[in-house]
Amino acid sequence: MIGAVTNAIAKTRKVILFNNTGVASTSGVTPDNVPEMAKDAVSFINALNITKADILGYSLGGFIAQQMAITDPELTRKIILVGTAPQGGFSSFLDFFKNMKMHKGAEKFLFTFFTPTGNSRSKGIESLKRINAPVNRKDSFLSSETIQAQAHAIHSWGTMKPFIILEEIMKPTLIINGSDDEMLLTINSYKLFQKIRGSLLFLYPDSAHGALFQYPEMFVDHCNYFLDKDLYNPQYQDYEL
Amino acid sequence: MIGAVTNAIAKTRKVILFNNTGVASTSGVTPDNVPEMAKDAVSFINALNITKADILGYSLGGFIAQQMAITDPELTRKIILVGTAPQGGFSSFLDFFKNMKMHKGAEKFLFTFFTPTGNSRSKGIESLKRINAPVNRKDSFLSSETIQAQAHAIHSWGTMKPFIILEEIMKPTLIINGSDDEMLLTINSYKLFQKIRGSLLFLYPDSAHGALFQYPEMFVDHCNYFLDKDLYNPQYQDYEL
Repeated sequence: MIGAVTNAIAKTRKVILFNNTGVASTSGVTPDNVPEMAKDAVSFINALNITKADILGYSLGGFIAQQMAITDPELTRKIILVGTAPQGGFSSFLDFFKNMKMHKGAEKFLFTFFTPTGNSRSKGIESLKRINAPVNRKDSFLSSETIQAQAHAIHSWGTMKPFIILEEIMKPTLIINGSDDEMLLTINSYKLFQKIRGSLLFLYPDSAHGALFQYPEMFVDHCNYFLDKDLYNPQYQDYEL
Repeated sequence: MIGAVTNAIAKTRKVILFNNTGVASTSGVTPDNVPEMAKDAVSFINALNITKADILGYSLGGFIAQQMAITDPELTRKIILVGTAPQGGFSSFLDFFKNMKMHKGAEKFLFTFFTPTGNSRSKGIESLKRINAPVNRKDSFLSSETIQAQAHAIHSWGTMKPFIILEEIMKPTLIINGSDDEMLLTINSYKLFQKIRGSLLFLYPDSAHGALFQYPEMFVDHCNYFLDKDLYNPQYQDYEL
């Protein structure tokens, strides 16, 4: 993720950025499915001797966070799901991926993460400048094998019959997306919100899959507020008065 | 509205609470439709010589705020729409109203504004204690004529073919509701968000039509953040890069 987000969050709490197996600076072969990716993420957390963490999952990372919340609930304190979707939530990802590949360079980046308005695109260009800064550049390349494996994992997740029972995610959860996420579809964030008890849904104006990069300050403020405050615990929901 | 919300907002900005025509302490006959209610609200603002204001509209007040934003856009700086709906957004209000009338006293209040969980009901009881405090009590009675006129206005708004073009609301707008608003339906807040350019949508967990009273601190924090920051202006949306 990009420094305007992660460095800002790291001002007040410990942030561990994680390239999963085969991604950019991490060796190994990227699995082509979410459950194995989640296992690898859990192994990473275990290897660091971390027993409980807040998990921020963006896009494919949000699928992994959902899977981890089900299979390893004791590892998770709170969850932030950004630009993501439930299993079975979409079927148009391959079309989006094809359209995406028809764009080149900066236009590909803007098409993927921002809306076509001048407002959104200007924020996209600022974001691209941050990514292209030398300090970030060395870690941003993915092999074509990894891209293919990730695309397969995303497509499978979005088109499979849901096996993950989102109602079982009993952690405080913050769901964030842009108004016009054409990749994983904004309505999927609403669906996640309806199913995950104790979740909050925040949707941002005139923004797409890269909403967190379009409004980095607001996004960071929302994450910190959610992580700092004891807003709501779904564990209490069934308590009868 | 209730002191936990309005007094808290009034700590950092001027708040004017407004009983519209025929409501509680205000004399006159309550109109049975939203456009006339909006005219009365505009007259009130004009009479105070206010030329621009932030408008917070809750429930029926949210319909009035939408109408004012269309007919008198120059009066409005930013808009907060809470527990509300677009024209044509629902048809089950009369059923809800009938069910509501089958409950009495505290149970009627809890049924109307909170979910059936212990978590939500306990916050509802706290809210009721605040309302019943002597300082608030004197202004909370509505005549049966006013209740009937408001119910007619709400039902008409929800079942009419939409005349209000929400796309024309070109003001920064914050939309807030609970996860389970059975009165005006949570999905209507999502619909408002989709149509009003430059709007943000925040939905709160395990809460109903009274979400703002269930989470008064968070609600106030969100209102202040939205009113203080220059997050997004829909006027810039069509600027081409």
